[in-house]
Amino acid sequence: MAETTRDHAHSAAPSPHSAVVDPSVIARLRAIAGDANVHASPDEMHGHSLDIGPFTTRGVAVVFPGSANEVSRLVRVAADAGLAVWTVSKGKNWGYGAKMSNENGALILVLERMNRILEVNEELAYAVVEPGVTYGQLNAHLESLGHKLWADCTDSTPHASVLGNALERGVGTTAYADHFGALCGMEVVLASGALVRTGGGSADSRARHTYKWGTGPFVDGLFSQSNLGIVTSAGIWLMPAPEAMTLFGCNVDRDEDVPAAADALRRLSLAGVVQPNVHISNDVLVLANLVQYPYDRLRGETRMPPSLRAELRREHMIAPWTVIGAVYGDRARVANAEREIRRAFRGLGRVEMIGRRKLALARAALAPWRRGGRGSLADRIFRRVAHSSLERTEALQHLHATFRGVPGEFVVSFPYFKNRRYAHRSERPLVDVDPARDGCGMTWAVFACPITARDTRDFLACVRPIVERHGFDFSMSLLTINARTFYALLQFFFDRDDPDESARVRGLYDEVLDAAPRHGFQQVRASIASYDRLLEHAPDYAALVGALKRALDPENVLAPGRYGVGR
Amino acid sequence: MAETTRDHAHSAAPSPHSAVVDPSVIARLRAIAGDANVHASPDEMHGHSLDIGPFTTRGVAVVFPGSANEVSRLVRVAADAGLAVWTVSKGKNWGYGAKMSNENGALILVLERMNRILEVNEELAYAVVEPGVTYGQLNAHLESLGHKLWADCTDSTPHASVLGNALERGVGTTAYADHFGALCGMEVVLASGALVRTGGGSADSRARHTYKWGTGPFVDGLFSQSNLGIVTSAGIWLMPAPEAMTLFGCNVDRDEDVPAAADALRRLSLAGVVQPNVHISNDVLVLANLVQYPYDRLRGETRMPPSLRAELRREHMIAPWTVIGAVYGDRARVANAEREIRRAFRGLGRVEMIGRRKLALARAALAPWRRGGRGSLADRIFRRVAHSSLERTEALQHLHATFRGVPGEFVVSFPYFKNRRYAHRSERPLVDVDPARDGCGMTWAVFACPITARDTRDFLACVRPIVERHGFDFSMSLLTINARTFYALLQFFFDRDDPDESARVRGLYDEVLDAAPRHGFQQVRASIASYDRLLEHAPDYAALVGALKRALDPENVLAPGRYGVGR
Repeated sequence: MAETTRDHAHSAAPSPHSAVVDPSVIARLRAIAGDANVHASPDEMHGHSLDIGPFTTRGVAVVFPGSANEVSRLVRVAADAGLAVWTVSKGKNWGYGAKMSNENGALILVLERMNRILEVNEELAYAVVEPGVTYGQLNAHLESLGHKLWADCTDSTPHASVLGNALERGVGTTAYADHFGALCGMEVVLASGALVRTGGGSADSRARHTYKWGTGPFVDGLFSQSNLGIVTSAGIWLMPAPEAMTLFGCNVDRDEDVPAAADALRRLSLAGVVQPNVHISNDVLVLANLVQYPYDRLRGETRMPPSLRAELRREHMIAPWTVIGAVYGDRARVANAEREIRRAFRGLGRVEMIGRRKLALARAALAPWRRGGRGSLADRIFRRVAHSSLERTEALQHLHATFRGVPGEFVVSFPYFKNRRYAHRSERPLVDVDPARDGCGMTWAVFACPITARDTRDFLACVRPIVERHGFDFSMSLLTINARTFYALLQFFFDRDDPDESARVRGLYDEVLDAAPRHGFQQVRASIASYDRLLEHAPDYAALVGALKRALDPENVLAPGRYGVGR
Repeated sequence: MAETTRDHAHSAAPSPHSAVVDPSVIARLRAIAGDANVHASPDEMHGHSLDIGPFTTRGVAVVFPGSANEVSRLVRVAADAGLAVWTVSKGKNWGYGAKMSNENGALILVLERMNRILEVNEELAYAVVEPGVTYGQLNAHLESLGHKLWADCTDSTPHASVLGNALERGVGTTAYADHFGALCGMEVVLASGALVRTGGGSADSRARHTYKWGTGPFVDGLFSQSNLGIVTSAGIWLMPAPEAMTLFGCNVDRDEDVPAAADALRRLSLAGVVQPNVHISNDVLVLANLVQYPYDRLRGETRMPPSLRAELRREHMIAPWTVIGAVYGDRARVANAEREIRRAFRGLGRVEMIGRRKLALARAALAPWRRGGRGSLADRIFRRVAHSSLERTEALQHLHATFRGVPGEFVVSFPYFKNRRYAHRSERPLVDVDPARDGCGMTWAVFACPITARDTRDFLACVRPIVERHGFDFSMSLLTINARTFYALLQFFFDRDDPDESARVRGLYDEVLDAAPRHGFQQVRASIASYDRLLEHAPDYAALVGALKRALDPENVLAPGRYGVGR
């Protein structure tokens, strides 16, 4: 392995070594994937090294293989050349690294050309897809089949990979929100070049994509958040379109009630009334969706003071914390769930239920009111009648689609929040939203937090002071990944054009990643800049996965160090 | 490794080599576990080699360690001595091998002394238990805490291990029926002796037992149906006691309607109306619960002819196929589920709903009617009013408990069916039921079958003729393990005192295990006699798990060949 080409994502700038690769290697890559599918020029490599986080690495080439067979051969070429192979499906993992490797000098594989929907089984409600298949593509395909099945999606871009997100253990917005949990039956290329079908059954096992655990050891988990193989196709369970659905919301008006909201939510989740797709977002995150950062209203502060946040909340009619979720089922079950939710959140804030009819009404009402503009009579009437601002109501419309598994580009523009190149929310792109291309600054950190009042309170007490001490706005959401656990997700917005802020956000990031685990909050999804210390609290586990890595990839060719494995 | 001590479970009798072990090894085992916790005498070893299946092996010693630390040291002693280590939790895996290894000459570890309930978290609804904790013990403990939480159980013995069953991927009888799916956060002893906590977080990670996938590769699956480590404790999710519950049943009166019942069930399952704990059992299996085998009514046949089965069905008021399941939730949800179930099964047979009230009524009514005996006026009235025989009604009472997670010993006596030492059902033990001790004959084979009409029809068409051609009664059940998949479970009852039948059942077993995978039905739980060919249809997967085995257990000390791994 060419150690000289390696340095870490910690360095803000790519190493000068990073572009050094023998031209004969590039020729071999081109011979496998085709000339057009190998990018190696400085301009191309620059374009593939864009993300919104405060870290950058650069690979030696980006290859777009067309098949598992090509993937297998490319891995062997890389191994021969001493190059690390870093694989992404689409590279839309914004804020975690996008297409970038954790180290300079890697060969980047982007699997977006492998975008076949290999099967949709309507009866058993699953699809088999390749890594290049996007949420938008799968959704459109299911729609063309009559939309009897829903694919879960995230509130990120429709151009993201279904499998890529699931393998990173992303969380979505329907009853099938646990994306890794919905995977069933994989095909994987190992570092040796071997192609493996998981599940322990024959190629024509009928339950290959209906029964997850298979026969013998369950190995699929090894290929999630890891570098032990490259998944080239997988089954994913789909949700039969329910008879009814209601989007529900609760405005929690006091910070100190968030822990109680967590308790209410856990009871509902454990009782099976709500599915694990509930989001609790604070005001800053909601504002990031609705407006540009109020730079002009700051008085020398580097973050919004509480009074300004309160003003903005009033202007946009949002609460300090907003609970959003959706319930599905037959009409009687949904109606029953609505009752239970109202009961559970009683006393914590205003609960609203948005069914299809209410949604259509709001949509029809929005257009004329919108023409009046903020502060107009029409706007004031709308706010009085709807208990919501126009922009908030519009956001709910988009969320309603997302919670039906229909991906959109509205929510994913929130990383534009502190981007000074955009003076108004309305200047953000409506389609082809790409915060990495557009110079936005944001990174994430996400921790597992049990859904209890105590754990929620402790988490807030642990991280909020750190964020504020570093002079940043505290933005966060709590996403239920199962009935017992939140993904506690912090967004660190920064102005990427401001070198001081870019440097400071890195300090904040490191301190949060250090503090949260010491308080018992385990980081559950990691950026390329956080792998080095990720498993330091679990040395026995790190040794185990290290042994697995040496067994399956003795040359350490696949993404060395990814998720702390095989460093 | 002492190869001479190894021969396979295929041999019906233990090898004479099996008892050969150096006395100094036994002394070292005793020094670790204590004299009383090491069994090595021929009598003791005989007692530990009892099961109900047609295969027997014998170990060199059985050790009952008291802690993970002792397990770790015992493994190293075995490795030094060239002994294979075969581990069971309680050894109640009747019909699959019980306490027996797949090969003679192993050191058997029985973890039953490690029976601490380490934690019950009432808020987050989980327990952390050691392998020796039984269903009965966990249930009693939860009852002592006010029964706010239910542990799932099986319809096997209350003395079986909660973890043992989950690691074998057993299926239960509440909404948490996917037992492996309910495990969260393990502690494992590796062949090296190292103790590993899974999950990738710190020891005090708050989500250790609430969030299954953890950080980095998910490895817990490696320790299920495998020989890659010995699980010494694990978290298991518990079900909050629901407000309401109804046991439902449907009598399917025609064989040809079973596929349609599968379709109806899949739709209910995918819609979330019923949970994955529905059992569809055929008449032979139900009869095995209710009566002794009608040897006296056979006319030279080796199996019950259709006319006799029909007679027995009439006498006991059972259907050719019986669907049993339970729904849980708040009252409104359960009432709604009852309506949906009635609608789904309409036209397939009589549907009955048994709530708590109906259950109490039946219980009160049973005693006086029972005194009258079969054929009495009381009996005839009961049958007319209840649409059920006394014995069937009694069985439903027991099932109702099981579907609440309360384990009992009624159902598990079905392997006594063909045991000629018992003339009447009433002679079977009521407590401490132990079909292995009592000389019963039965083995199992279980395959994954998607829940569709077509797959169900194909499965029956594949296996039924084989069973009947071999001269055995076709007994089976379809258990939903998730919304898309049945465990298709075949019971091969035989008279273990009849050498001819014992030999013939072995031929039947082998033919079914050969035929079903060729028709796309993957075996999903295996007996010690079926490991050799288990992965032959999945050579790439077998190579992968073989590599993992060599990495984690280079000396091949842990259960070589278990589930086809590391042969």
